[in-house]
Amino acid sequence: MRVDPRLGPTVDELIHFTLNGGKRLRPQFLYWGWRSVVSSQQRTPEREHLVLRAAASLELIQSCALIHDDIIDRSQTRRGEPSTHRALAKTHAVQGMLGDSDHFGVSIAVLLGDLALAWADDLFTDACIALEATGAALPAWRAMRTEVLAGQMLDIGSAAAASADPEQQILDAMAVNRYKTAAYTIERPLELGAALAGGSAAATAALRAYGADVGIAFQLRDDLLGVFGDAAITGKPAGDDLVEGKRTLLLALARRSLLAEPAVLAELDAGVGVATTPADIDELAELIARSGAVEEIETRIEGLTTAGLSALRAANLNPAAAVALVRLAQAATRRTF
Amino acid sequence: MRVDPRLGPTVDELIHFTLNGGKRLRPQFLYWGWRSVVSSQQRTPEREHLVLRAAASLELIQSCALIHDDIIDRSQTRRGEPSTHRALAKTHAVQGMLGDSDHFGVSIAVLLGDLALAWADDLFTDACIALEATGAALPAWRAMRTEVLAGQMLDIGSAAAASADPEQQILDAMAVNRYKTAAYTIERPLELGAALAGGSAAATAALRAYGADVGIAFQLRDDLLGVFGDAAITGKPAGDDLVEGKRTLLLALARRSLLAEPAVLAELDAGVGVATTPADIDELAELIARSGAVEEIETRIEGLTTAGLSALRAANLNPAAAVALVRLAQAATRRTF
Repeated sequence: MRVDPRLGPTVDELIHFTLNGGKRLRPQFLYWGWRSVVSSQQRTPEREHLVLRAAASLELIQSCALIHDDIIDRSQTRRGEPSTHRALAKTHAVQGMLGDSDHFGVSIAVLLGDLALAWADDLFTDACIALEATGAALPAWRAMRTEVLAGQMLDIGSAAAASADPEQQILDAMAVNRYKTAAYTIERPLELGAALAGGSAAATAALRAYGADVGIAFQLRDDLLGVFGDAAITGKPAGDDLVEGKRTLLLALARRSLLAEPAVLAELDAGVGVATTPADIDELAELIARSGAVEEIETRIEGLTTAGLSALRAANLNPAAAVALVRLAQAATRRTF
Repeated sequence: MRVDPRLGPTVDELIHFTLNGGKRLRPQFLYWGWRSVVSSQQRTPEREHLVLRAAASLELIQSCALIHDDIIDRSQTRRGEPSTHRALAKTHAVQGMLGDSDHFGVSIAVLLGDLALAWADDLFTDACIALEATGAALPAWRAMRTEVLAGQMLDIGSAAAASADPEQQILDAMAVNRYKTAAYTIERPLELGAALAGGSAAATAALRAYGADVGIAFQLRDDLLGVFGDAAITGKPAGDDLVEGKRTLLLALARRSLLAEPAVLAELDAGVGVATTPADIDELAELIARSGAVEEIETRIEGLTTAGLSALRAANLNPAAAVALVRLAQAATRRTF
């Protein structure tokens, strides 16, 4: 594609963002989903190249999701660097351009996210057509795109409608985890990979069962890192979820445990989304730790990972792929970043 | 598609926006592009139905573009109703939801735009596959999507980098008109329609030549309506472009004419993007009218329309389609709304 030279610096921001950082989990799951079911005759270098292109498209979807999320969450940083809209606002200010720098940053970032979403489609659809897999793969691709956007809306909607009832919060957090993370991060990428090789219904079902469980465990690890993670390793400020007031399952479980201690619950509720100093944030983290919710989350992570891995073992998948998926499940659920 | 009941009211906002209002120009051009080249044997009810689905996808792209544009331009109204982010903010406030209503409106509107863009792709690609036209139509589809986003970035970028030199402004405005409007509104829809029927290179070239010319003429009519249009007919506030400080070709030509009258030019520059009262806006419109730029724009509209129509006549297109395209050219360039 030829880019008008005046757009160069702007599009460079998208290229830079997409090529730098990130765990590349989604492309890895797509690739190993394909390897799980592809026969050795079918696995030619040409096809493998097309599958890698399809896998790369997931990183463009992720760029759209993160660039737009950072606007929505008003995040200043991402992966230890200024978030895209902040970086663009800074360029605007440094170059002494006309108008409001913040508004310029947000405006261009909205459009760059759109561009990433459109280009993701182009990349995926082409690979899909070349692999003659449109019938199997496009429905999963579409479901994934809609799910991640709908999960994000559900997240914003349930925060805005915020119920004080911990049971409702638990249900809301689980629904958001299901769509926004589990399906999008692991289940659908695996399904896409399997579909690109024309995988059997049984193998696809096993991969999806593994993906749904490990995907939720992945999110629950994220919940723990968002409160107790080491900023130097995660690249996000310590206790970020507490500062943002993110309505995680961890927080909902802590609130349920603390129903018996109304004074402590009130202290927690008063601080989440409000606290900004390290001391106040540490205190909130301490309240959550004391509630027993951390152990509850660890137990769920363990249970989900075990269930996911047995779904995997029960299926007749390529052995090398099965080993890779066991390793990925561990990386996704035991990580420190 | 099943929508989580909690998302219903939000997605309804997108459905309402897409189904209400709009001139439906892009789908009409796609349809008549198809009719221009399709043979009578090829034109079955099944194929026509698929072409209408492909045409409808353009309205979803347009929903994304307008919903995101209204966020970027901070527009309060669209088609005489509150813009999508404003409508969502209002719902948030009326229902007494938690958090900042304005921010909620913008956040959900960003995601609704994304959803429209994703669904547009789904609708178009399906029709394209069913019509066995992916090879010819997907490249044009992709170019169109990228062009409209890039045109929008170019628009924001050239406003931010604003040169005071009228010649540079004229070039900038023409580049924006080319990508953001002409290609997106007429040229690419016609090309898409022709591609869905496997139209010849000659017919496609003629349709595109017509589309590029009539498309720019369409935008120039928009420039005039944005300054001199009747609010009761356009559905936008009178002199909207002057209030917004939109860098149109009309304004650039007026500024060039007024180089000989520095005091008047200074008065115009001091008012555009600043004036808010009807009296001040009328005065700015009067300065533009006196500069002779209106006649220059009318002459360009006339010339472009004539050139577009002769490209059309020179090609061997279906006669009924050619008549419809003459009518559409008039509607696009002589309209009052």
